[in-house]
Amino acid sequence: MFYAVVLAGGSGTRFWPKSRRNQPKQLLDIVGTSPLIAQTLERLEGLFTRERILVITQRGQLESVRKHIDLPEGNVLAEPRSRNTAAAIGLAALEIKRRSPQGEEAVFAVLPSDHYIDDLDAFLKTLLLAKDVALKGYLVTIGIRPRYPETGYGYIELGDPLKELGYQGVYHVRRFVEKPDLATAARFVEQGNHLWNSGTFVWRVREILGALHEHLPELYAGLLEIEQAGFTPEAVAQAYETFPDLSIDYGVMEKARNCAVVVGDYGWSDVGSWSALAELLEKDEQGNVTRGEVVALDCSRSVLYSDDGLIGAIGLRDLVVVLSGGAVLVCPRERAQDVRKLVERLKQLGKDEYL
Amino acid sequence: MFYAVVLAGGSGTRFWPKSRRNQPKQLLDIVGTSPLIAQTLERLEGLFTRERILVITQRGQLESVRKHIDLPEGNVLAEPRSRNTAAAIGLAALEIKRRSPQGEEAVFAVLPSDHYIDDLDAFLKTLLLAKDVALKGYLVTIGIRPRYPETGYGYIELGDPLKELGYQGVYHVRRFVEKPDLATAARFVEQGNHLWNSGTFVWRVREILGALHEHLPELYAGLLEIEQAGFTPEAVAQAYETFPDLSIDYGVMEKARNCAVVVGDYGWSDVGSWSALAELLEKDEQGNVTRGEVVALDCSRSVLYSDDGLIGAIGLRDLVVVLSGGAVLVCPRERAQDVRKLVERLKQLGKDEYL
Repeated sequence: MFYAVVLAGGSGTRFWPKSRRNQPKQLLDIVGTSPLIAQTLERLEGLFTRERILVITQRGQLESVRKHIDLPEGNVLAEPRSRNTAAAIGLAALEIKRRSPQGEEAVFAVLPSDHYIDDLDAFLKTLLLAKDVALKGYLVTIGIRPRYPETGYGYIELGDPLKELGYQGVYHVRRFVEKPDLATAARFVEQGNHLWNSGTFVWRVREILGALHEHLPELYAGLLEIEQAGFTPEAVAQAYETFPDLSIDYGVMEKARNCAVVVGDYGWSDVGSWSALAELLEKDEQGNVTRGEVVALDCSRSVLYSDDGLIGAIGLRDLVVVLSGGAVLVCPRERAQDVRKLVERLKQLGKDEYL
Repeated sequence: MFYAVVLAGGSGTRFWPKSRRNQPKQLLDIVGTSPLIAQTLERLEGLFTRERILVITQRGQLESVRKHIDLPEGNVLAEPRSRNTAAAIGLAALEIKRRSPQGEEAVFAVLPSDHYIDDLDAFLKTLLLAKDVALKGYLVTIGIRPRYPETGYGYIELGDPLKELGYQGVYHVRRFVEKPDLATAARFVEQGNHLWNSGTFVWRVREILGALHEHLPELYAGLLEIEQAGFTPEAVAQAYETFPDLSIDYGVMEKARNCAVVVGDYGWSDVGSWSALAELLEKDEQGNVTRGEVVALDCSRSVLYSDDGLIGAIGLRDLVVVLSGGAVLVCPRERAQDVRKLVERLKQLGKDEYL
């Protein structure tokens, strides 16, 4: 049995001013015409029944998330607080173990709720291949062939092919590499033996719980308590107080020995910043991406996005301008990642009406 | 008797999105804490009684202008249509001839309503000197010693000093030069014999009407008809139908032989664009001028102005960002003059709610 777990707990400050506390990236229609989470779920329909799809979000976002999805009520799990991906995946593993007739033998995929995928067929085929590999006992991650030296992604260095399985594009993992600098990223792309870490995983309940037990024993102990208490909200809340704030990559994958990577080639992006829209949306002849009410004179390679009034732009190069919710963001495309810092500053200044 | 005529008919598109059809530049408080026209009138108080100050505006702006000034009702003249400065000055000359016990012997100063002046005393002294020169029969213009090679201004090439008058800083005019290119402007500044044309004039009614008669006979004929009809609104409207759309510089000053220029040194700017604010308002340590709700990270030499929400700016250099009235303008400072083109485009697109 194959389950899907969609992680929708991110607070997503990189799309400010459109993303806000209760309107994180996964709820925005920045790419396409529906919220990213709705697109993610739609994508899964070909492979999973609605009953086998779980969404994990934060308590504060539960209502907003529900508005955009059509799943059985019990399939949307709200974490009492945000504790990064290791905790969310542990909780999901428990839940699937409980639900599935196969128990620990059930396989599940973990998918971010806010990524872009172009080629649906290729994506689903990759998931099925990853499932097969997971059934051999591997912790499977999906790696994307890098198209350029992106410094905003983690990388996976390929080990030997997993030839014994007879599949193309399946490898042992030599190591996980955190976001590199530009020179390193360029070398990775040139060498051809590194993939982008897409944050998409497939494994059996058994293997991931085993890995949590081995590498994050404290977290695992908390999960056991939740299970023994019969999944009461109180037990979940209590356990979350003790859970470490760790990603599954850092907490488990970098340490585990039974990792495998499946090469995904389906036009993927994590839609990591406003600048990424320039790669994903249709451009005009000058390379601008515009959305909403925009009048641009002599602009090129810029992202001009408005859902709250008119943007009048003259002579801009590689700039991001976003007008939304009574605020405007202006920054060079290469600084688009620093929008988080701006949001941090807004917090310090107590500008709550813009957060 | 000394009169002041304040020209307040400009439609001022260069301060979009803050300036709008019914909210031209002279009604904005972009520099200082009151509208530019109010600052202009306040400046004149030291030299002119309220009865001797006339304001000329367009019919469509009459109500907005009245709100900001405190003059006798009859001292605000509304042109039936906008016909540039030659027509407005001709009408003012007639009006002063009619009002003044001195008739054609009365002297009047013509002042733009939307300029910035730093040193009030020096300004008023310059006007008084210009008045003396005007009383000798000259058409006097006030020229400003250029501080840098501005290409947005016209220039006045100095002729010989008007020595016979015994004044310092008074010259014949060799010629008026239209807005030069950068190389020419740089040469003017280096040579030291060119001044900025500030659009401020002083003359007797007799000399300016005589010059209109000589150089713009059609306009003069219309003025005579207005006078003969007793200044009825119908006569004014009819005459304005025939008036040419010409500036006083182009229509008269460039052709007249009795021009003189008085050097003004009082910290002047025509506040010609958003970029000019960077010269006139207080800057932070990075050379940014900010007004309103602005949060800027790592920005320098930029103009960040909001009266309608929050500007979040990252990594900007020499950029203009203005958030006002549900629209945002973004352009490099060196393109700030092209805001007119943007407004032109908005007209073409029928975006009336932003005009």
